[in-house]
Amino acid sequence: MLLRATPPHTFTHTLHATSDPQPLRVWICSQRARSVKMPSYSWLLALYLAALTGNTDGAVARESTERNCSSTPPYLPSTAVNTSLQLEELRVQMRGMNISAYIIPATDAHLSEYIAPRDARLAFMTGFTGSAGTAVVTLNKAALWTDSRYWVQAERQMDCNWELEKDVSISSVAQWLISEVPKGDEIGFDPFLFSLKTQEDYNINLESSDRSLKSITENLVDKVWKERPSVPPDSLTRLPDRVIQRTWQEKVEHIRTQMGDSPYKPTGLLLSALDETAWLFNMRGNDIPYNPFFYSYTLLTMDEIWLFLHMERVTEELKVYLNASCEGALCVQLKGYDTILDHLKNYVTRPGVKVWIGTEYTNYALYEVITPQDKLLTSSYSPVLTTKAVKDETEQQILRDAHVRDAVAVIQFLMWLEKTVPEGNQTELTAAEYVDKCRSKQKDSRGPSFGTISASGPNAALAHYSPSKETNRRLTVDEMYLVDSGGQYLDGTTDITRTVHWGKPTEMQKEAFTRVLMGNIEISRTIFPSGTRGVNMEMLGRRALWEVGLNYGHGTGHGVGNYFGVHEWPVGFQSNNIPFRAGMFTSIEPGYYKENDFGIRIEDVAVVVPVQTKYGNNYLTFDTVSLVPYDRKLIDTSLLSSEQLHFLNKYYETIRSMVGPELDNQGLREEKDWMLRNTEPFAEIGSSASVSSSSLTLIALAVALLHNIV
Amino acid sequence: MLLRATPPHTFTHTLHATSDPQPLRVWICSQRARSVKMPSYSWLLALYLAALTGNTDGAVARESTERNCSSTPPYLPSTAVNTSLQLEELRVQMRGMNISAYIIPATDAHLSEYIAPRDARLAFMTGFTGSAGTAVVTLNKAALWTDSRYWVQAERQMDCNWELEKDVSISSVAQWLISEVPKGDEIGFDPFLFSLKTQEDYNINLESSDRSLKSITENLVDKVWKERPSVPPDSLTRLPDRVIQRTWQEKVEHIRTQMGDSPYKPTGLLLSALDETAWLFNMRGNDIPYNPFFYSYTLLTMDEIWLFLHMERVTEELKVYLNASCEGALCVQLKGYDTILDHLKNYVTRPGVKVWIGTEYTNYALYEVITPQDKLLTSSYSPVLTTKAVKDETEQQILRDAHVRDAVAVIQFLMWLEKTVPEGNQTELTAAEYVDKCRSKQKDSRGPSFGTISASGPNAALAHYSPSKETNRRLTVDEMYLVDSGGQYLDGTTDITRTVHWGKPTEMQKEAFTRVLMGNIEISRTIFPSGTRGVNMEMLGRRALWEVGLNYGHGTGHGVGNYFGVHEWPVGFQSNNIPFRAGMFTSIEPGYYKENDFGIRIEDVAVVVPVQTKYGNNYLTFDTVSLVPYDRKLIDTSLLSSEQLHFLNKYYETIRSMVGPELDNQGLREEKDWMLRNTEPFAEIGSSASVSSSSLTLIALAVALLHNIV
Repeated sequence: MLLRATPPHTFTHTLHATSDPQPLRVWICSQRARSVKMPSYSWLLALYLAALTGNTDGAVARESTERNCSSTPPYLPSTAVNTSLQLEELRVQMRGMNISAYIIPATDAHLSEYIAPRDARLAFMTGFTGSAGTAVVTLNKAALWTDSRYWVQAERQMDCNWELEKDVSISSVAQWLISEVPKGDEIGFDPFLFSLKTQEDYNINLESSDRSLKSITENLVDKVWKERPSVPPDSLTRLPDRVIQRTWQEKVEHIRTQMGDSPYKPTGLLLSALDETAWLFNMRGNDIPYNPFFYSYTLLTMDEIWLFLHMERVTEELKVYLNASCEGALCVQLKGYDTILDHLKNYVTRPGVKVWIGTEYTNYALYEVITPQDKLLTSSYSPVLTTKAVKDETEQQILRDAHVRDAVAVIQFLMWLEKTVPEGNQTELTAAEYVDKCRSKQKDSRGPSFGTISASGPNAALAHYSPSKETNRRLTVDEMYLVDSGGQYLDGTTDITRTVHWGKPTEMQKEAFTRVLMGNIEISRTIFPSGTRGVNMEMLGRRALWEVGLNYGHGTGHGVGNYFGVHEWPVGFQSNNIPFRAGMFTSIEPGYYKENDFGIRIEDVAVVVPVQTKYGNNYLTFDTVSLVPYDRKLIDTSLLSSEQLHFLNKYYETIRSMVGPELDNQGLREEKDWMLRNTEPFAEIGSSASVSSSSLTLIALAVALLHNIV
Repeated sequence: MLLRATPPHTFTHTLHATSDPQPLRVWICSQRARSVKMPSYSWLLALYLAALTGNTDGAVARESTERNCSSTPPYLPSTAVNTSLQLEELRVQMRGMNISAYIIPATDAHLSEYIAPRDARLAFMTGFTGSAGTAVVTLNKAALWTDSRYWVQAERQMDCNWELEKDVSISSVAQWLISEVPKGDEIGFDPFLFSLKTQEDYNINLESSDRSLKSITENLVDKVWKERPSVPPDSLTRLPDRVIQRTWQEKVEHIRTQMGDSPYKPTGLLLSALDETAWLFNMRGNDIPYNPFFYSYTLLTMDEIWLFLHMERVTEELKVYLNASCEGALCVQLKGYDTILDHLKNYVTRPGVKVWIGTEYTNYALYEVITPQDKLLTSSYSPVLTTKAVKDETEQQILRDAHVRDAVAVIQFLMWLEKTVPEGNQTELTAAEYVDKCRSKQKDSRGPSFGTISASGPNAALAHYSPSKETNRRLTVDEMYLVDSGGQYLDGTTDITRTVHWGKPTEMQKEAFTRVLMGNIEISRTIFPSGTRGVNMEMLGRRALWEVGLNYGHGTGHGVGNYFGVHEWPVGFQSNNIPFRAGMFTSIEPGYYKENDFGIRIEDVAVVVPVQTKYGNNYLTFDTVSLVPYDRKLIDTSLLSSEQLHFLNKYYETIRSMVGPELDNQGLREEKDWMLRNTEPFAEIGSSASVSSSSLTLIALAVALLHNIV
């Protein structure tokens, strides 16, 4: 049901920019804008339908499904939402605040990648439910900016109160604001929903225009959203001991050590991203679909801990667990979620304090109260995020374990498809349901980790595709099928993509698939010094494609959490990701997409592990923890190097040794056979070893014959 | 004679940082510091001796060659320079300006990589002649910051007036300043010698310390440097038509088109880097050793051209060439070099103007007068630098031609070494002289493009090594020898490194050499989409080394000019280099250095060329234009893939077809034979083609024998 917001698909401009090689900045101070690189946290919950583009049987003609605001009377499809009332009420609020425009972003106060329904303000105001966009309301106009993936959807969902704007840069929004807002007037925004960079970008673009931003901490949309979903009442939970190596007390001490070691001597650390607090206290919640997070902030000082959350959700048992009845260095003082700003303001007035924030996940509301500047210490990521990025031994082991069970589910699913697709009754949607069902039967399952991408034929060529009633395709032996899915388990989060063909693939499909696989293998088997950045290696995922003029328009991988977000930054292959260290988990997911035809992606999760080299120390490589075979009929082994073939065979051996026993345990005999069939070793012809041996046979034959003659 | 300031050796921290994965910043505004990345332009002319470290026959015991300021009386070696007088005089100047400290950087007003003798202020003040450093003088102390390469040299050249500081970060200099300068006092600097980033870094580090920077446009060192070399009197020259495709008028129009196309509508473009003006007007000079540059700035507006230079060096012929007697859009108005600041100030007062600068090469003195902010447009590099980066067809052809003649010189040199080294009379210094001599005999030679790195055995393990009397090693058949050298020609600039062994290399030496070669080949033969950044591909140069735990601590390549700088930024494999486009030239130079043992580097220059791929358009690859064979006895072909072997053989074919005729033309028969011997094709065993054919032979044999039996 959720569009999967895949940052890898959105942060590849480094490699693929075809425009000006260097960004132009109008004023020197605008260079500050370059200093903070944000992962994509402005993704909105898609409440209803997903991307409606695509050439499908179910799609109706465009004239009737999209609005036409220039006809008389304007034409609106049945999917359009009447937004007159909420606009009218918002404008009342705006007049009350004396602002001429109000900006509505698509994220939450934690700059989350996925958001909860109660944060879907953009959808409430506009009717548009795509995962990315910005809305601006003036006293007499309203406009939505969204990217090309969502233009059709926006035309179907919005009424004629709204303009659709297509250049999604902040400078484009600002230009529109300058043309619509009278000189001297103010433009309101909710600083909780702005990153530092967003605020800075608007500021730069409005500078010297005589229009200024006005930070309004009470969200105006919330004031008019009468049926806004409330915070879920569910109690928060702590992780069981069996999935924990470090207690929260140990984590706190470890982070404090890092604070103490900093030459800048921070006295406090502010944690804003939802997984920061959840990680620190080994706790989970259920506030965000697919993500076991709960609304929270933490202010950790050298001798106190303040945890801001919805206190009614904290059980007595949890209070004991958190040592919540005292105020010492290892006591967690529970504070109301909404009191963070006041507490932070208060803390900053103390003499000699300095608050450390990670700029990528701190909202502008919290940032702006940390003044003067010498009370602020910034890094891109907080020490919690960089510490969390390296999994401890327990986390590594349980994440591997979860992947074994996940492999069982995916193998079950793939075998089922192989059997039932030829019968003609399966569709993208039934397949997506079935893979979820397979996972749900596995131990410690906690549901999918994102909305399954189940895409057949041309639908798979849309990297962000997710099936809907309108776009649903029947699965057939004539089309390739791509399934990108993952599970949440109490002990780990998984994410895997396989692409299959149940009939006879074309030569081009086989070549493209094989080259995508070569990319996956080349990254997986590469050896590199500890501290190498993913962005410096990710071309290995593309090189075999580049050789024949193919490529893909998304990133090559992202960190993965332990029962956490399926995209766990800052690990990965993006330019703003941190260097690889042993113990990090990342996806590796090259692909190839042929428009209106097919899509290929081969995604595995791998852990960074130390490797012994001939001469040097401190070298690393990847160990693949996703354990599902690739579709054999799509592999053209003649394209593989002997090293690649060898790697593939070793991987298949690992699948047999790791997943085989689990299939046995679960009594899945048919699946075991399917797995064994699909992990048969490939003949390593072409490798020098096998060549020699075949030559030797011939020599032996020749010699034998000579003997006969003699 | 010059230490070669090789930015590739200094900007590799992206890949090799072992410290904190993300830089910490104390205050948010400090993030501006991250926005400007500077190539290394703070390199000082090394006037006298080069790095004096190394385990050599000629080296004398340390006690006597380094100063000892803690003994009584202090001990000074004969190489130390007495700086008391200049310090005294500088302090008089400082008191006159009411400053308590004065910062002396190691660059010139154009932020040049190499500087002229008249800009060697650091050497004049300190005695220290290394290419990198910063000096600070207070009213009673003086300190020099330089990196580990130069610590021994500094201890030999400085007297006891100077402290040596070893942490070269600006924050370390600032901390020292804070400890030495009283609160409330000012610290002077020459804004012509500061980049924007340098100024910003000092500012950030001094912020809230109650010490502030004072910009003093008259350089105080110059006031006390009585024998400061004057600007060379040599007339400037224009390039002959045969090496030019675009006239200066065409270039001006082209740049103006880019200004007009900018959405920010700049009215003027300020050119500060010396090669920007030289390129625009197709002119050359002789002010900087090894670099055919001349002191100049240009202010190019949409309808005027102001060229700032030393007017006495402009001949009448050149004035006609420049159309210097009028004031129209294609008339060059000549102005005195020293009047740039006043003219710029004046220009900025005009209503509606906006000046475009490239932040990487504009000094702070010019930047600070462009106010208010809306009169300023910045990009990292000016449109001249990005345009110059892509060579036109003529430039490409003549740069290739220059490399053919350069290959003749290097082949002559390598053959001569092979013959004379076993006789025992050659040293690093005689070799360096001989290669210069070989080049000087080639048509259109204009001298070396940098001081030759001629390094034997352990000396070659020092990446910045350049031979001196003290370190000079005899060349023998027992040691590997590395020679990194280049020439200036009227039609191009060359840069090539070969590593050879005249005796029996060890297995480790062969393996390391072969893996360095594999790195060179892997980059050279890779196919990539236009617009890919070098930094995203450069790991291909390291991968074969990484496999066995080897690596190198410098960058992998830099742009190369047409009778210009041997390091022509912003092309190359560094993180701040621009994406590759067809027509760019870059060096490709992986290496490996075994401390106290040997050093290997294999460097070629290559041009980026379009390549036809099976499916896609707009793909590129490299075409190597350096045409000198590698040492055969160092290549272990069993390590090479069949693709690598094939590439190598094709390269050798190219050498034969390109350099063979030129050797014939020059009547160099012996060299021709040497070249042919050294470009014999390697047997492509291991490739599937040759394997099949040998198998086929065996099958044929077997069949034949069977026939015999029957």
